[in-house]
Formats: sequence, C-alpha cells, structure tokens
Amino acid sequence: MADRQNHLEVSVRRIRDALETNRTKDSVGMFLDLHPGDQVEVFELLDAKEQELLLGGLDTTAIAALFSRQEDAVTLEAAEGMELERLADVLQEMEPDEAADLIGDLSPEQASEVLGQMEDLDDVLPLLGYPDETAGGRMTTSFIAMRRHTTSQQAIDFLRKVSPDNEVPYYIFVVDREKRLSGVVGLRELVVSLPEIRMEDIMNPDVLRVTAGTDQEEVAQLMTRYDLSALPVVDNDNELIGVITHDDILDVVAEEATEDIYRLASVGDSGLEPESPVREHLRGRLPWLYLNTLTALLAAWVISNFEEMIAQVAALAVFQSVVAGLGGNASSQTIALIVRALALGKVSPEKVWRVLAREFLVGLLQGTAVGVIAGIGVYLWRGNVYLGLVLGLALVANMVVAGFVGTIIPLGLKALNKDPAIASPVLVTAATDSFGFLIFLSLASYFVSKLQ
Amino acid sequence: MADRQNHLEVSVRRIRDALETNRTKDSVGMFLDLHPGDQVEVFELLDAKEQELLLGGLDTTAIAALFSRQEDAVTLEAAEGMELERLADVLQEMEPDEAADLIGDLSPEQASEVLGQMEDLDDVLPLLGYPDETAGGRMTTSFIAMRRHTTSQQAIDFLRKVSPDNEVPYYIFVVDREKRLSGVVGLRELVVSLPEIRMEDIMNPDVLRVTAGTDQEEVAQLMTRYDLSALPVVDNDNELIGVITHDDILDVVAEEATEDIYRLASVGDSGLEPESPVREHLRGRLPWLYLNTLTALLAAWVISNFEEMIAQVAALAVFQSVVAGLGGNASSQTIALIVRALALGKVSPEKVWRVLAREFLVGLLQGTAVGVIAGIGVYLWRGNVYLGLVLGLALVANMVVAGFVGTIIPLGLKALNKDPAIASPVLVTAATDSFGFLIFLSLASYFVSKLQ
Repeated sequence: MADRQNHLEVSVRRIRDALETNRTKDSVGMFLDLHPGDQVEVFELLDAKEQELLLGGLDTTAIAALFSRQEDAVTLEAAEGMELERLADVLQEMEPDEAADLIGDLSPEQASEVLGQMEDLDDVLPLLGYPDETAGGRMTTSFIAMRRHTTSQQAIDFLRKVSPDNEVPYYIFVVDREKRLSGVVGLRELVVSLPEIRMEDIMNPDVLRVTAGTDQEEVAQLMTRYDLSALPVVDNDNELIGVITHDDILDVVAEEATEDIYRLASVGDSGLEPESPVREHLRGRLPWLYLNTLTALLAAWVISNFEEMIAQVAALAVFQSVVAGLGGNASSQTIALIVRALALGKVSPEKVWRVLAREFLVGLLQGTAVGVIAGIGVYLWRGNVYLGLVLGLALVANMVVAGFVGTIIPLGLKALNKDPAIASPVLVTAATDSFGFLIFLSLASYFVSKLQ
Repeated sequence: MADRQNHLEVSVRRIRDALETNRTKDSVGMFLDLHPGDQVEVFELLDAKEQELLLGGLDTTAIAALFSRQEDAVTLEAAEGMELERLADVLQEMEPDEAADLIGDLSPEQASEVLGQMEDLDDVLPLLGYPDETAGGRMTTSFIAMRRHTTSQQAIDFLRKVSPDNEVPYYIFVVDREKRLSGVVGLRELVVSLPEIRMEDIMNPDVLRVTAGTDQEEVAQLMTRYDLSALPVVDNDNELIGVITHDDILDVVAEEATEDIYRLASVGDSGLEPESPVREHLRGRLPWLYLNTLTALLAAWVISNFEEMIAQVAALAVFQSVVAGLGGNASSQTIALIVRALALGKVSPEKVWRVLAREFLVGLLQGTAVGVIAGIGVYLWRGNVYLGLVLGLALVANMVVAGFVGTIIPLGLKALNKDPAIASPVLVTAATDSFGFLIFLSLASYFVSKLQ
C-alpha cells in the first residue's frame, strides 16, 4: 500500500510537470497508462486548473470512464467546468445510471441545456425521475434481456455483437412478450448448455425482484442476505426496467454506514469530508450544535433550581457532571446497538420488549458496578460517606434511564418512519443530562444536612 | 417487505406447530420449500430446542447451505449442539472458507475432534492458519484455475464437469506451470471466443492481486475502488492460493462499519447485538464505562480547585456543563469525520496540516456562532453581562480545542498503527471536559467580582 502511494505521488508530480511546461500530450499519455482506479486518485490530487488542462487533452471515452469511477463531488466540479457540447458527448458515453446521477447533480439550467445537446436520451431519460436513494436511482438500464424462446446459440451470437463493457455481464434476464421478467440465466449455465436449448429451459424462474421505489437500504439488505450479485428492478406491471449490480450495493452499504456514523455524531450532511469547504462544514454541523445548546441550557435550568443548595455545598458542583456524563456514555452505547441493529434489519417489532428488558437489566448492572466504584472513590477522596452514597445511587438511576430512553427513542423514531440515527443522540442526551442533574441534586437535597 | 415479514411469521408458526406435534417430516418439507434466504430468517426465529429438532430432519447438504448463509453466531450455537460425526459431514459439504470460519469459532477440543472426523481436509486445512480479518481468512479455495495453453473448448468442457455451485462462477484464473497467477478470463470472453483459442490469448494479464496477510479493510478498499467482483490472493511466490468474492466484501464493509460505530460509542465488542446475553453486554461495555469514570473524575478534580469560588457564585455550577457538553458535541463531529475518512482511505499524511487548519477554523467559527447566541441567552436570563461573556468566550476556546484534539488524536493513533475509532472518543472527551471546566472557571475567577 505504501508502494502504491509512492507510485501515485510520482505520477502526480510527472503529470503536473508536463502540464506546467505545456506538454499536455505527454501528461495525457502518462495519465492513460495508469490503472483506471489509479487515474481516479491522481485526478483528485491535481488542482482545478490542472484538471481542466488534462480533461482538455483526454477523449470523451476516457473522460466518461473517469467520471463513472470517481466520487460524485469531484466529477460534478469537473463537469461544471466543461463546455456543454463536450459534456453531452461524455454523458452519452457513460453508463446510463452514472450519467443520470451526474445530470441530477447539475443545476437545473445546466441539466436541461446538456440534455438538449445529447443525441440519444432513451436510456438516460427514464432514470432521471427516480430519487437517488431508491432502487430506481441505483439501477442501470444497460442490461441484457432475451426472450424465453431464444436459443443458447442465438444468445451467444447476440453477446458477440453487443458492447463488451455492459454493466451486468454475467446474467441474462429472460422476459416474455410483454417484457415481463420470467427468469434469469447465468453465463455459467449458458456456456455449458447445448446450442439449441432455449432460455426458458435453463433459466431460474425463481428470481427476486424489487420495484423502482424500493429504498436502497432495503435493496442492500436483500442483496446481502441472498448473496445476489445482480437484482432486477421491475415496474408495477412486472416489466423489467433495470438492474442493480453488486458494485452499486457496495457503495450503498458504505454510504449508509457513513450516514449513520455522522448522524450519531451530530453531523447532518453525509457527504461532508474533512477537506470539504468550511461553509459546508458549518451548514452540516452548526444547526446540530445549536440544538445541543438548547438541550444544554435546559439541563442548566434544572441545575439552577438547586443553586441555593450548591452555594452551601459546592462539592455538589464538582460531582454533578460525573452523573450526567456517564449517563451520556451509557446511552450512546445503547443507541449504537439499537441503530445498528435497525440498519441491518435485525430488530423486529415483536422483539421490542425483550430488548427493552435487556437494556433495563444491563443499565441496572452497569449502574451498580460503576456506582459502587465511583461512590467508594469519592468517599475516600472527600471523606463523606453520604456524598459517595448520593453519587452512587444517582449513577444507578441515570444508567437505568440511559438504557431505557436509549432503546425507546430510536425504536420510536423508526416506528414513526424517521431515521433513528438522526435525532436519537440529541434527545437521549437531553434526557440523561437533565435527569442526571435532577436525580443527583434531588438526592443531595434529601441528605443535605449530612453533606455539609 | 411487510408482506414478506408476514409470510415468514406464518411459516415459523406452521413449522413450529409441526415440530410440536412430532410431524418432523412436514416441518422439514415446509422449511425446504422456503427460499434459502428466508430459511435463514425462519431458523433464527425458532428457539434452540426447535432448531435442534429441525436440524435432525435435514440432510447434511441442506444444513451446509443453511450454515453458510446465516450469521456466524447462530451457526456456532447450532453446530455446538450437533453430533461430531454429523457436523463433520456438514463441514465437508460447506465451502472451504465458510467451513474454516466455523471450525475456527469452535472450542479447540471440538475443532480438533471434528477435524479428525473429516475425510478430506485438503481445502480446509490451509485456510485455518489465516486470521479472520485478513485476505487469507476471507478467501475461498474453491475457484477455477486453468493453464495458459488451455483452449476455450477445453475450458467449457471442464466447466460442464465441475460442480455448478462453485463460489467464483464468473471468472477463470489463468496460471502458469508453477501455479503462478498470469491473468483472468471472464466467462463473457470465454463464451464468445472461438473453440480453439487459448486462455493466454483472451486473458487480461493486468490483474490486481493481494497477499494472504493483507488486512480485510484494505481488500474492501481495493475492491470498491476498482469495482472488482473477485480478487485473487497469492502467496509470496505469486502462486494463486485463493479468491475473495464480492459477497465476502459486502460482509467486510458492513462489519467494519459496525466496528467503527460501536467503538465511537464506547462499545468494545463488535459482535454485540441488542439480544446478546447480558454477560456479553457487560464484557463489551463496562470496561469503557470504568475508563470514562476515571476521566469524569479527572474533570471533577479540575472543578474541585474552584470550589470556593463556586460557593460564592453558584451560577457557575449551572453553566459549567454547557461548556463541557458542547465541546464534547463538537469534538464528536470532528472525530466522526476523521475516523470515517481514515476508514475509507481518504486522508493521506500529506493532507494532515490542511485538515488540522480547517478544523481549527471551523472550531473558531462554530464556537463564535454558538458562543454569541448562548452568551446573549444567558445574559437575558440572568441579567449579568459578564456571565454571558465568560460563557461565550469559554465556548469559543473549548470548540477550538475540540477541533484540534478531535483531529490530532485519531490521526496520531492511526500513525501509531492503532485503530483511531477505539480510543479517540474517551481521550478527546477527557480533553474537552477538563479543558472546558478549566477555561470557564478560570475566566470566571478573572471576572469574579462582577459575577456576584
């Protein structure tokens, strides 16, 4: 891996040198000699100006291949800088699903202008209507379909003719006269079959399918569970309209994971990266901090009701945050377990009570384990057994609350068809903070005479 | 999806009824009529006793298929309850990589006993030596390799003979006399080639490969970046020893994401699920809570140095947690961005300074944005402009610290070859808590005469 990194850096330097000294042809030659996957990385390492120069020297096929492979954001930036006519040619050469994604990312004006320039819109146009995160938005329309009575030899002859960089090269989908999906034939079966045998005789008729509106997370769950490398997409009449391939699903799984990780950490924009522009950081992060400010002030208000007591026993100010903080830690454990189980389709409604009971018990046990140690520690430090007792009891109570709200809030959001990852941490932390201060300071007020 | 859920529940009920009334054959029949992916779900919904009864009625091929598809933990539990001889037969029928995984999960005694019972160990034995999370641990030894001079017709004849449920059905790997990997032929090329053409004439010689020790996360990055559906694994002499397929990589991507999500939430065991036994919850979660207790007490010690002042100005106890809490939120945003970028291979060492500068700036801007609002809010609430000022300034300072430590700690752990997800949250929260209290209370002590 380190070797590869080195190799890439050397390539970038050479291509950059060639571009700076106006040897565009040389730079293009070096670029095309790279492995397609490496081209993507090298392109990203060039600055905008260099990228533009390089694109100027590449032919539309090479640009189409590059655009299909790299991150959407990098492609978009490069595409926005291109002449419309040239961009139209590139889009024409891209896979329809990739082209549709890129067109969808352009501004409405640019999109309609570039569509006007394209010669053949048959493959791309139907894809533009589907939201990005659905089966329709993920599928390609570039697949191989044959009729039921097609013979093996006819199929092989057809494969010889069609372009070899088809996106779904290992399956032939079998359709009837109305283009309705009847079955699937793997190339493996085709290659070992007799020339005159018909598709309907070797096809597997038991083929899973989804409709275009199916959510991409559900598609990913199906393809993972059933080990599918391609999943056909049909319309309401069961007509085959597209296919989702395993590499699209890898992207989905990674994207959904990023989304969950970000949302659990109060980052609202799943496209954000460390090097994104500062204004994008602020747009994706600041609103959540404002929301957290509100819940923090709510927790502060809880404390303010005990100010007089704190003025008498300032030690309470020292330990109140221990209760709130550990409740927050325990609840984030619970939320992570529940959110992940929901994302992987592992919690069904009938199991809710069992899960809730388990988290309740775990909260009680963990609270006791931590409460005893922390209580004894504080007693030894401060020499007041009641302070240790108040802290220990408050920890037990707050961890039970943490397990409880950490379970029901994400499950409740899911039941309301909301994303459990997005609001759970804020709501649950609000609960464990406020309740943590409340229980600790309430217990303290009960024992206040012993604490002074 | 709801329909499917219903269908599964009906199946479970029927199979359960048949088992309870000793109609094992009926239950087995119903089970086998299910789609293989559904069998997995139905099996999981049965209790241990029912699972055992059902397994007793299935033949070893059906059990092997079931074991290969379902979660490792479920398989392990079922396997541990089986007779050794029967388990050996099942393992013999499983794909070698799946069989090796299961044997690796058994207790050492059970593993060696069952290995003693198996007839053919050639495929499985070499796989047992590789750690689970490496290319060697993920690869299958069941792939198709042919020599360079093999003709297309010979290849097709061979495919007719070998078992059709080979795990890598769409590629033929081409090797030389010493079994060294020379290239790859897609079935697509094979099917459209003339009968007498040789593998070496149609193969793609430029085939990416990894060694058996390569980490699975790197494998996943390569396969995603290069859109590979199969990646060959070679030994140090470039001899082909296995192949990793796309469905294995889907599992890797999902597992690595789970691991990161859990670690960021202080859950140490990436195999934990909401319904795992309570003792596993405690084992995976409690140690992290103890560590958090330590850092919380450290932060408490910081506060304890200001107890006298707090006794005079109890309002400080009300607002100190706002500073620490929002610093924690901001730092978890930064950690999530950095950890995810590292996992997806998007942060290279040369970019560290740029990333650090950006997070510094974002921290400053977010701190100012939140500090101004919170400061004004507190001024309006409490009527003391200095209290608002102290809170606002402390928020700015703590968010800058949050951005700074949230960046350098995960990057530093990565540079030390540690997992950045595992320790970052604890260390960073320790910093934002302690520093948050310190800066807020220090500023307060500077303005103390104005706060009373």
